[in-house]
Amino acid sequence: MIGTLHLVGVGPGDPELLTLKAVRLLGAVPVIAYPTTGEDAALALEIATPHLNAAAERLPVAIPMAVERGPAQAAYDGAATAILVHLRAGRDVAWLCEGDPLFYGSAMYLVARVGPHAPVEIVPGITSLTAAAAVAGRPLAARNEMLKVLPAPLDDATLRTELAATPAAAIIKVGRHFDRIRMLLAETGHADGAVVVEHATTPRQRITRLADFAHDERPYFSTILCYRGTEAWGETAGAGA
Amino acid sequence: MIGTLHLVGVGPGDPELLTLKAVRLLGAVPVIAYPTTGEDAALALEIATPHLNAAAERLPVAIPMAVERGPAQAAYDGAATAILVHLRAGRDVAWLCEGDPLFYGSAMYLVARVGPHAPVEIVPGITSLTAAAAVAGRPLAARNEMLKVLPAPLDDATLRTELAATPAAAIIKVGRHFDRIRMLLAETGHADGAVVVEHATTPRQRITRLADFAHDERPYFSTILCYRGTEAWGETAGAGA
Repeated sequence: MIGTLHLVGVGPGDPELLTLKAVRLLGAVPVIAYPTTGEDAALALEIATPHLNAAAERLPVAIPMAVERGPAQAAYDGAATAILVHLRAGRDVAWLCEGDPLFYGSAMYLVARVGPHAPVEIVPGITSLTAAAAVAGRPLAARNEMLKVLPAPLDDATLRTELAATPAAAIIKVGRHFDRIRMLLAETGHADGAVVVEHATTPRQRITRLADFAHDERPYFSTILCYRGTEAWGETAGAGA
Repeated sequence: MIGTLHLVGVGPGDPELLTLKAVRLLGAVPVIAYPTTGEDAALALEIATPHLNAAAERLPVAIPMAVERGPAQAAYDGAATAILVHLRAGRDVAWLCEGDPLFYGSAMYLVARVGPHAPVEIVPGITSLTAAAAVAGRPLAARNEMLKVLPAPLDDATLRTELAATPAAAIIKVGRHFDRIRMLLAETGHADGAVVVEHATTPRQRITRLADFAHDERPYFSTILCYRGTEAWGETAGAGA
């Protein structure tokens, strides 16, 4: 019997934000695989650790952070080969994914490589997107409003067009693009309604209105939530007054 | 001591896709409030029921489904008033939200009404979006691609413009708009890569390529995932061959 590869979303950081399904699997599978490099790698293992089967074999995989694609793709080829050795011996494997496996995750590279040879199951996780909204107490979008998830490395012209045309957006992968993004949000009418959420649901969490961010400061591990819609709050007749 | 209102995301349907935090709160709070009408109302209570504190008081709230806004807003005013009676008596209240509270949820209407008078905490949940991707085994988006969440009731011109300019999109609230959406996806080059996911993670789950949908058929409780990007799968050197 060939084993199953479980791509397991472990959520944004709070150890209580794993699902029951993720906890069950992490406590049961005999092999735990995870990336050892990359922005989020250490976090995924840290979140999962309290829930891991103590007897499980660890399969760490180094993924090069190069901008060019070649080295990382070779690393995923190597990871898939190592994982398939276990699956073909009948051992299930869990691959740890910060947040959700398919929301800007690298787990897809394993689906493409392992999927043709063995069963792959995906356990969705709480994304950084909904975690940021929850801790900020702000709507992502409501009713019939569109919501755009925009990676900060997109070019200025694209970001300007996309931001101008939406009431709701989330900017991800902000990093060194913060100054550009701040300018583009101001140009497109989003600066006043934007909130910067850093390290959502972790002890280092910080929530700051974009307008209150010092000009020489840069956020880390952050999502910028933009909302200038009117639907989400609703008109109120003043309950509780 | 005033109580806290917890807006609790209970996920897409699978009873294992609640978070540990949601399960802890649902087992502890003395008052459970929930909408009794609307598409998703029955589902939220059904998902949560196995986890509820059996001794908890139930506070059902009827939310009119009218297209015009007035009656629903009055219902949320009434719900907030009833919830505040409990909070002011020192009793915590959990409000059940299918999926995630802030991803197209109605929970924001309660934040706006209760927030000025009592603490409100939000527990993020697995969205229908990531659940659909997980069961379909398909990427939402990867690397530096944008992702658009587009409610089907948006007008044709808006949907055409937004779809044409993105490699990745999810169409929500499809319902009676299915034929329009199908046409717009064909016009914008998304028809071939689109998958219809119905009732994700529930026993009635069905996953169908849009191209395989019969012309006289309509999907229910569905999300349409569109992906014509190239990033998410990655080039592979053929691991496991």
